[in-house]
Amino acid sequence: MKLLGVNKMLFGGDYNPEQWPEEVWDEDMKLFEEAHVDVVTLDVSSWAALQPSDDVYNFEKLDRIMKMVTDHGLKVVMATPTAAEPAWMAKKYPETLKTEAGGTRRHFGGRQNMCPNSPILRKFYAAMAGKLAQRYKDYDNLVAWHVSNEYCGYCYCDTCTKKFREWLKVRYKSLDAVNKAWNTSFWGHTYYDFDEIVLPDLLSEEFHFGGEEWQVKSNFQGMSIDYRRFMSESFLECFDIEKAAIKKYMPDTPVTTNFMGGFEQFDYKEWAKHVDFVAWDNYPKFGSPESDTSFWHDLMRGIGGGESFSLIEQTPGVSNWHPYCALKRPGVMRLWSYQAVAHGADTVMFFQMRRSIGACEKSHSALIDHAGTDETRVFREMKELGAELVKLGDATLGAVAKAKAAIVFDFENWWATELSAGPSVDLNYLDEIHTWYKGFSDLHIPVDIIGTADDMSQYKVVLAPMLYMSEEGFASKLEAFVKAGGNFVTSYFSGIADRNDRIYLGGYPAPWRDILGIWVEESDALVPGSSNSFVYEGKRHECSIVCDLMHLEGAKALAVYESDFYKGMPVVTGNKSGDGEAYYVGTRSDRKFYVDFLGEICAKNGITKLADAPDCVEVTERSNEKGSFVFALNNSDEEQKVVLPYAVRDLLSDKTHDSTVEITIGAKDVLIGKKI
Amino acid sequence: MKLLGVNKMLFGGDYNPEQWPEEVWDEDMKLFEEAHVDVVTLDVSSWAALQPSDDVYNFEKLDRIMKMVTDHGLKVVMATPTAAEPAWMAKKYPETLKTEAGGTRRHFGGRQNMCPNSPILRKFYAAMAGKLAQRYKDYDNLVAWHVSNEYCGYCYCDTCTKKFREWLKVRYKSLDAVNKAWNTSFWGHTYYDFDEIVLPDLLSEEFHFGGEEWQVKSNFQGMSIDYRRFMSESFLECFDIEKAAIKKYMPDTPVTTNFMGGFEQFDYKEWAKHVDFVAWDNYPKFGSPESDTSFWHDLMRGIGGGESFSLIEQTPGVSNWHPYCALKRPGVMRLWSYQAVAHGADTVMFFQMRRSIGACEKSHSALIDHAGTDETRVFREMKELGAELVKLGDATLGAVAKAKAAIVFDFENWWATELSAGPSVDLNYLDEIHTWYKGFSDLHIPVDIIGTADDMSQYKVVLAPMLYMSEEGFASKLEAFVKAGGNFVTSYFSGIADRNDRIYLGGYPAPWRDILGIWVEESDALVPGSSNSFVYEGKRHECSIVCDLMHLEGAKALAVYESDFYKGMPVVTGNKSGDGEAYYVGTRSDRKFYVDFLGEICAKNGITKLADAPDCVEVTERSNEKGSFVFALNNSDEEQKVVLPYAVRDLLSDKTHDSTVEITIGAKDVLIGKKI
Amino acid sequence: MKLLGVNKMLFGGDYNPEQWPEEVWDEDMKLFEEAHVDVVTLDVSSWAALQPSDDVYNFEKLDRIMKMVTDHGLKVVMATPTAAEPAWMAKKYPETLKTEAGGTRRHFGGRQNMCPNSPILRKFYAAMAGKLAQRYKDYDNLVAWHVSNEYCGYCYCDTCTKKFREWLKVRYKSLDAVNKAWNTSFWGHTYYDFDEIVLPDLLSEEFHFGGEEWQVKSNFQGMSIDYRRFMSESFLECFDIEKAAIKKYMPDTPVTTNFMGGFEQFDYKEWAKHVDFVAWDNYPKFGSPESDTSFWHDLMRGIGGGESFSLIEQTPGVSNWHPYCALKRPGVMRLWSYQAVAHGADTVMFFQMRRSIGACEKSHSALIDHAGTDETRVFREMKELGAELVKLGDATLGAVAKAKAAIVFDFENWWATELSAGPSVDLNYLDEIHTWYKGFSDLHIPVDIIGTADDMSQYKVVLAPMLYMSEEGFASKLEAFVKAGGNFVTSYFSGIADRNDRIYLGGYPAPWRDILGIWVEESDALVPGSSNSFVYEGKRHECSIVCDLMHLEGAKALAVYESDFYKGMPVVTGNKSGDGEAYYVGTRSDRKFYVDFLGEICAKNGITKLADAPDCVEVTERSNEKGSFVFALNNSDEEQKVVLPYAVRDLLSDKTHDSTVEITIGAKDVLIGKKI
Repeated sequence: MKLLGVNKMLFGGDYNPEQWPEEVWDEDMKLFEEAHVDVVTLDVSSWAALQPSDDVYNFEKLDRIMKMVTDHGLKVVMATPTAAEPAWMAKKYPETLKTEAGGTRRHFGGRQNMCPNSPILRKFYAAMAGKLAQRYKDYDNLVAWHVSNEYCGYCYCDTCTKKFREWLKVRYKSLDAVNKAWNTSFWGHTYYDFDEIVLPDLLSEEFHFGGEEWQVKSNFQGMSIDYRRFMSESFLECFDIEKAAIKKYMPDTPVTTNFMGGFEQFDYKEWAKHVDFVAWDNYPKFGSPESDTSFWHDLMRGIGGGESFSLIEQTPGVSNWHPYCALKRPGVMRLWSYQAVAHGADTVMFFQMRRSIGACEKSHSALIDHAGTDETRVFREMKELGAELVKLGDATLGAVAKAKAAIVFDFENWWATELSAGPSVDLNYLDEIHTWYKGFSDLHIPVDIIGTADDMSQYKVVLAPMLYMSEEGFASKLEAFVKAGGNFVTSYFSGIADRNDRIYLGGYPAPWRDILGIWVEESDALVPGSSNSFVYEGKRHECSIVCDLMHLEGAKALAVYESDFYKGMPVVTGNKSGDGEAYYVGTRSDRKFYVDFLGEICAKNGITKLADAPDCVEVTERSNEKGSFVFALNNSDEEQKVVLPYAVRDLLSDKTHDSTVEITIGAKDVLIGKKI
Repeated sequence: MKLLGVNKMLFGGDYNPEQWPEEVWDEDMKLFEEAHVDVVTLDVSSWAALQPSDDVYNFEKLDRIMKMVTDHGLKVVMATPTAAEPAWMAKKYPETLKTEAGGTRRHFGGRQNMCPNSPILRKFYAAMAGKLAQRYKDYDNLVAWHVSNEYCGYCYCDTCTKKFREWLKVRYKSLDAVNKAWNTSFWGHTYYDFDEIVLPDLLSEEFHFGGEEWQVKSNFQGMSIDYRRFMSESFLECFDIEKAAIKKYMPDTPVTTNFMGGFEQFDYKEWAKHVDFVAWDNYPKFGSPESDTSFWHDLMRGIGGGESFSLIEQTPGVSNWHPYCALKRPGVMRLWSYQAVAHGADTVMFFQMRRSIGACEKSHSALIDHAGTDETRVFREMKELGAELVKLGDATLGAVAKAKAAIVFDFENWWATELSAGPSVDLNYLDEIHTWYKGFSDLHIPVDIIGTADDMSQYKVVLAPMLYMSEEGFASKLEAFVKAGGNFVTSYFSGIADRNDRIYLGGYPAPWRDILGIWVEESDALVPGSSNSFVYEGKRHECSIVCDLMHLEGAKALAVYESDFYKGMPVVTGNKSGDGEAYYVGTRSDRKFYVDFLGEICAKNGITKLADAPDCVEVTERSNEKGSFVFALNNSDEEQKVVLPYAVRDLLSDKTHDSTVEITIGAKDVLIGKKI
Repeated sequence: MKLLGVNKMLFGGDYNPEQWPEEVWDEDMKLFEEAHVDVVTLDVSSWAALQPSDDVYNFEKLDRIMKMVTDHGLKVVMATPTAAEPAWMAKKYPETLKTEAGGTRRHFGGRQNMCPNSPILRKFYAAMAGKLAQRYKDYDNLVAWHVSNEYCGYCYCDTCTKKFREWLKVRYKSLDAVNKAWNTSFWGHTYYDFDEIVLPDLLSEEFHFGGEEWQVKSNFQGMSIDYRRFMSESFLECFDIEKAAIKKYMPDTPVTTNFMGGFEQFDYKEWAKHVDFVAWDNYPKFGSPESDTSFWHDLMRGIGGGESFSLIEQTPGVSNWHPYCALKRPGVMRLWSYQAVAHGADTVMFFQMRRSIGACEKSHSALIDHAGTDETRVFREMKELGAELVKLGDATLGAVAKAKAAIVFDFENWWATELSAGPSVDLNYLDEIHTWYKGFSDLHIPVDIIGTADDMSQYKVVLAPMLYMSEEGFASKLEAFVKAGGNFVTSYFSGIADRNDRIYLGGYPAPWRDILGIWVEESDALVPGSSNSFVYEGKRHECSIVCDLMHLEGAKALAVYESDFYKGMPVVTGNKSGDGEAYYVGTRSDRKFYVDFLGEICAKNGITKLADAPDCVEVTERSNEKGSFVFALNNSDEEQKVVLPYAVRDLLSDKTHDSTVEITIGAKDVLIGKKI
């Protein structure tokens, strides 16, 4: 990412002075300066204030705010306030409100509570974005645009139904093609007219599996996947509309929106093609391991084509929507900020600058707490980090990571693996991806997150765990990759279906049988309490989730099941082909397995670790024209030793460390070493 | 059941060639022949294809399919495709769609998504069934009709509301009678006009107890039970309409529909009077014991008047709708097929012949898997079973089971025991029935499943566990049965209410107090963690669910509570009366108790076990004009020894076994011994 | 409470003869006499019977019932039957039915199923209440009126929406004031017209946190709290309307309605100002400790201004709506009846006199069971209690309790602590209150339950645990209380927000920082499995829920955390100020802590225990012009020893006990000692 006139990592975040009396603003400016804040995201929630009725706009207060922050030398990320519709608009145009999967149109409230296909709203979106851009286009410190906020939430209204039919006509040309794609002859759901098609919702083809609200399954998964594609595109159109309105006035200022980690509804890989740089909000799921966060950082870098990205929101202290809002321990806010940087972030930004006095995020922490002073632990830690970022300057800006290994992550596949009943409720695409990612993380080997359409030739090792769904040409691409010396690794429930969730006939994983040299005849779900195991390279590992029952068709068994009626059948296989090899792991195993297995493949292929370090220390590397930077992050509560393969100067402490010595990193501390 | 021109157990199942390109059909025919398939169920899901609009019908493809399967010597069970309404019909007649208990009318989708009382649909049902029968009436190989598919799902729409009022007028004659039956004076719900009555749904009298969706309770249980009766009859009318249309053209061909195991919504006992033979789909609940399946087989035989029945669906390998789709272990498909036969089945049929390429059952197994070959384990096991069934020929066809013991099972009672709050959420009618049934199963003593209206004189022992609800005359019937030498056994929460769920006044179980010689004053629910116990015939047994506090009024205490303030009060009683005895068990006990208790009663009454065998071996007997057949099914994973009371020839192995010797049955293996 | 012509504790309860044939009535009268029943609550469920259409009333049967019970010397509590709308009315006026939070209007059914703001219903309420009062005004034995029954259930209909807007206009005068109170600038929810405001429901600002139905959170808590205030007042208006209609004819007869324990929806503190005496239904939550019930008794006494109250409903044996309906053990019905009396009840009344034959409470016990006789355990225990109450006569009538300690309980606070996400799902206002209350109970120190507006000067110790929300003036009131020698105790999550749930800025608990001498910087939620501890007065105690991180600003640390990064920070503090002290406990601790901590504060302030007795014996004291009465209730299953500070005569046994001797109280037995 490149932001005009920015020569350090921006430090700051969401700032809502319009929610406060103006006498507070001065205090804000003083505290921002003290904390080295240099950027604010403005205007996220002020639609109602800026536009009190159809044709009336009122920018006076925003003018004053812009002047003030500019006078105080702050950069601005300007948001469009379109994430929350004004109450008057909801009242006047009730058809703009979202309709739930159960068929109920919502009332005014919350945010992202709108139909993405409402023509009225789209008109208002364009108008607001255009007016903002026109008005503030001459501000040099307006470094980027932030359209809307955390887009989310499918709509099931009549407008969307009609648009879905149009979308289908474009995608499929004919109704015959739709009927075939969705296999509607099953249960006799054949359509004779596009107008017979209703959205796949809880009143039609979707349902709560086992009565559990979190498990939505579909009778016709092809249809449900198409609906998700359509929704993802519908919201993306809303973004594009605002972006176009902005570009009319500020063609050179980058425009983005804030993505979310762990968010499944939209295909961010497609979205990333539309934003000028990727920006995301990092709120780790309650209790999740650090490597899960790293995965999301790498994913955001990956969908942005490997470029640096913006960490645009994180919490200074606590978020308030976890079941248990434990405090970020001392040092953790800093550690996680550098974790983002280590994976490619060029900004360290927060929600929020001042904690709101009321409403749903009043318990979410901020640089300036309700206490209103610089005396809080959170303020002090922020201020120290702010000073460090000043010191780091532009050293790491624009630096990229270079990986020889990649993991395929596919949003449509995430949808597909959840929409079908069977083989096991424990099947979980994201968990499977995290599990393999963790293997690389434990090995301190960097990895890129790519899509099936991406170039694989730059990698020595490509993983595609649980890639249930893939397009027609992917198999031949794989074959070419392997024959040319690549190593491909996949796992159970892979290579099964095409992009419409129609099974590839001919024995699983039909299109990949040749390259993998196996045939998966059946998959046995492990019920709670049951287990199996295998020995790989002399060590015993556990099986979980499912056990694939497979036959060798050229591949070599690298491990076999130790029990049950399929005792002795292969569970891990390798198949040499041309200059490369294709591996299959027919179950979910334990953490140690992935380290051993990936470690061996990497070793064979000359992929070396970035450092000698314990698991609890995360190590990454970024490079730019100024040099190479190694990041070592100690996630543990004790000090740890790290040995790097080259000498470095620590940009934070200014110490230098030789390549042969053990470097000590304190608990929750960070090393940013510039290669010397 | 008698199917014209059938002289062996039919082997095959659901076949949907219309969902496949015709080039696949040849392959199907070859694989069917290889696997000894001799019957296919056609046309289950093709309504939309056969009737593209109100007055247009298109049978050409079905003609070709009929010709092909006929040419290949296959018998046909012809389904009517009315389980899934075409999309065009739902669009044109939205009032035909089902309305949920929460008041929302559903959209097009799924199957059985229709209002059972829609006049439009009923017209279409009759038309379709009639046209099919008219068209294919001359096919000799069309051996039976299969109307619709797995009827289910109550409707709460306006049409149903109006019909319910009419139904009540017929049933009760006057509104006074309704008010009395439902005890509407409670809470002042007295109706002054039939039109004031609304359906008992989640917006009126029913609710989720404790907020749990699976627990629907009612304020007015009499009303809720009547609604269930009405719904059961409404759907049955749909069946009758199609049946009549078929009979017009094929008066001699039997017509049925496929019942479901564990299905509570309809009174199958009533339905069985309308089908020409009972057919059912056996998909055991995830993790349930084999004896639960046996119960359902016996129930299906029982409601069909003791005649043989059709196992019309089961899965060859896995079903896909379980939380954990564990594979049927080797031999289990065969074992469970013979389990059906052992209890009275004359067909062994499956869902499905070819696994669908997409939609909600694509992960459900089939004779022909996605691999499309005969090389799968499932195909091989099917083929071997097919060959065995050829060998068995007509030996067991029409054979009946003869039992001296019976268990009363009552669908209305199932409803009633769930609709009231109290005494315990652990109270479960089906579990209670299964528990007692398991006692007989462990003893290898055959049992019939009967209703309260059935003749009991042919039995020495009749059980009616947790028969909360019974009709006015049942008490005197019981009395006659016992006085004439019968043994009656019942348990807690029995004899409480009449068929409108109005309590029989005078002390529980009021109408049965005389015959049981007891008065149950109170029932104490055991909270989690609490327990009680009793000693019966020298052995200690546990209490669970509830403990009845009862007084002897002529009965003898056979066991007393060991603790709590009712220590010493009777828990198991027996009351001699005339030549028989009536027993009461005031709690749920442990598995061993039922074996001991039933074992003793049977022993006293000359009811002998079918074999000496361990619990894990199930033993049954069927007889026809060709002889008597004993079935011994080894459910365990080790071989087991069985001693039979008479010499047999094993129809599968052709070996003979003397009556005095131990016969070894392999793991998951089966003996079908013809008495010699 | 004072009931004309009543000179003993009334004993009886809900009686519904209209639900029975008249031949049963005679039997009722005989059994009532045998059991010493002297009061019946009539007419709770007979609206439909009394008013068959808009203008037709039919009181003949009620006339007969009144005559009968009067002839038999019974007092009457006359209910108005308005808790359940007649079916004809619901059909004719569907807009009178309640609308759910999900936006669905309910159908006829259940009770309390009506919109509280329906003008039609309010007209009918007044008419019915007036007609009843007019008709029965001359009955001397009509001692009180019982309006409606267990009011409950918020409504979300259009009528309520419109009235809410009117209510807001009155409360806030201007829309600006509403916008400010609710902090609508957050998320840009600013209203420009009152008509833009919709109710806070599941379609607008409220949602199920974590997908759990029991956790309703709000985006705009100020709005949600206002809606609850509005609903509480709307229902209270319904009560007032009926009360006024009654008073027109019977100005001197007290009018009340039956409150419920553990019921959160209405602000009973406000309601209590409108009833002539407080009456409540005591159905302890399944498995709750006895002290929770005591709390509710004390609360009911407290909201009634310390006057005696009516226990107007409890179950003789079992309630039927618990998950496990365990029987009330022998003696428990009597014990719990006296528990009510011990805390201030002047009546001992039950639901119900005769167990209904059908519908949802048929499994709820009664004086007269389905057996219909006097031979049940429940009848015998009731009869014995009835005789004892005759013996006690008017001794304790009108007696009051005198406490030197008080706990602040605040209904609005209960709402507020549940409506926000964060800091912990384990946060629970009622649990916190119960925990502190239990401390006093264990110490045998009597306590009053008061509100923030009540006079505190009569107390030496006032607790306000988790008083998150308080009005502007409360801080200065506290200060005056403490300076004048009072001891104030509060806990984590207190003093945070004003009555609109807007945070008091300036560092928690901002308005109380001075008086407490602390600043709470952060609150750390304890995740499951984590813990902390502290040592207070030499004993170690556990922390749970949250740990406040606080700084001393004049207060003294009485205990500090033993672990985590805030090890050594204060957790319990005391701050002397004037003649008093203000204490803060920054976590939830264990039972022993509250006994030690409160014990010490009481000891310092000369508050002495009522008796030396083990925890399991509850001790209270009441006094009237006849003397002082000590109640000692043995909740355990073994006999216990108690030493009283003065000599007493046991009013039940007539024994006298000296002040120095150990008095033995049997298991579940009761001592009512009159000071001599």
